[in-house]
Amino acid sequence: MAKRVRLERRIVAESDRLARRLRARFRKAGLLVLNLMSSPGAGKTTLLEETVRRMAGEVRMAAIEGDLATDHDARRIRAAGIPCRQINTGGGCHLSAHQVTEALDHLDLDALDMLFIENVGNLVCPAGFDLGEDRRVVVSSTPEGDDKPAKYPVAFLRADCVVLNKIDLVEATGFSIRAFRRYVRGVKPALPVLELSCRTGEGFSAWIEWLRRARAEVG
Amino acid sequence: MAKRVRLERRIVAESDRLARRLRARFRKAGLLVLNLMSSPGAGKTTLLEETVRRMAGEVRMAAIEGDLATDHDARRIRAAGIPCRQINTGGGCHLSAHQVTEALDHLDLDALDMLFIENVGNLVCPAGFDLGEDRRVVVSSTPEGDDKPAKYPVAFLRADCVVLNKIDLVEATGFSIRAFRRYVRGVKPALPVLELSCRTGEGFSAWIEWLRRARAEVG
Repeated sequence: MAKRVRLERRIVAESDRLARRLRARFRKAGLLVLNLMSSPGAGKTTLLEETVRRMAGEVRMAAIEGDLATDHDARRIRAAGIPCRQINTGGGCHLSAHQVTEALDHLDLDALDMLFIENVGNLVCPAGFDLGEDRRVVVSSTPEGDDKPAKYPVAFLRADCVVLNKIDLVEATGFSIRAFRRYVRGVKPALPVLELSCRTGEGFSAWIEWLRRARAEVG
Repeated sequence: MAKRVRLERRIVAESDRLARRLRARFRKAGLLVLNLMSSPGAGKTTLLEETVRRMAGEVRMAAIEGDLATDHDARRIRAAGIPCRQINTGGGCHLSAHQVTEALDHLDLDALDMLFIENVGNLVCPAGFDLGEDRRVVVSSTPEGDDKPAKYPVAFLRADCVVLNKIDLVEATGFSIRAFRRYVRGVKPALPVLELSCRTGEGFSAWIEWLRRARAEVG
C-alpha cells in the first residue's frame, strides 16, 4: 500500500507540474481558459455552440473536446465556426494535463482570446485534475435533480461558477431551483449560479456577462 | 511505468478475487443481484422505488446505495419499504467489491430473493469493476441525448439490459428513440432496450417482466 501511495503521489506531482506549465503558457498568450465539467448530457456542447454564436464578433475562441469515443462534439463545435481539437480518452474518465498539452500543438494560442476545454462527461473524476485553466464551470441540468450539489460536492466545491441548464424543463421534471441553490450554498456559499436554457435562450445573457467579466479579470 | 502497471495489476487481481467471492456467496444464497449504473440523475433510485412498490408482495428485496456523499437515496429506498445500506465513497467514483463485501454484514442474504446495487452516478468508471452481480443494467434517460451509447461505449458493452427512462420527455428534449437504438446496436447488437417512464408508469411492466425472467434464469 505504501508503495502504491508513493507512486500515486509521483503521478499527481507530474500532473500538477504539467498543469503549471499549461497555466504559464496560457498566461503568456493572454487568453482566458475555461474547464467545463458536467454529467453526461447536461448540455456542455450546446452551451458552447450558443456561446460561439453570441460572441463570434467579439472574441476569438477555440475549444478542446474530451470524450471517451467519437468526434461528435468536435464536429458540432467546428460547425458553429471555431477551431476545435477532439481528444478521445479511450476508457479514460477525465482529461489530463498531458492530453491538453498535446492538443495545443494543433491550436494557435496567440490567435485566441478564449479557450474552452470541455471535459469528459463525468461529475466525479474531472474535478480532481488541474488542466491549467483560469476558471472552472460546472454545468448542471434540471432533469438530473436538484440534490446533485450535495451528492457530488467535490465538483461544486472546486467550481468558480455553476450554469444550471434546461430551466425550460423545471416544471416537467419537478425540479426545485430553491432547493438546488440551497444545496449549492451548503457546499460553497459564494458560488454563483446562472440559470439558463440553451434551448430557449432564457438567462443566457448573464452567462455571456460572466464570461466578459472573467476575461477582463484575467486579461 | 512498469512498476505502476505491476501494482495496478495486483489491485485489479485483488478486486476480481473479492468479486468472485461475492458471486459465490450470492449463488449460495440463491438470489438475483443487479448492478445499476448510470449518469447522475438518470433515475436509478426512482426506478428502484417503483420496482419495490410493484414487486413487494412477490419477492424479498434489499438494496445497497453508492454515493460520494449523503444518505438521500438510502432514505428514499427504506421509505419505499425494503432494507437498504448506504455506502459513501468520499471522492470515490465507483463502488468496489470490498465496499459491497462490508455492506453485506448489514444485510441477511438468506432472507432475500433480489439485491439491487445502485452504483455511483457515473457512466464511466463503474463499468470497469465487477461486484459479483448476475446482471448489469445501464439506466439512460432522454434528457442526456440519444448519442450516449456511442460516447460512453464501455458501460453499454458490458451491460445486460438498458433501461431508457424519462420517455415522457422525448418531445420536450428532442430525443430520437430510433437514433438511440441505432447507437446501442452499434455497440452491442443483442442488448435489450426497455423504454419506460418512472413518472408516468408507461413501459414499466416490461422491466418487471425482464426482472422476473432474470430471476428465473439465475435462481
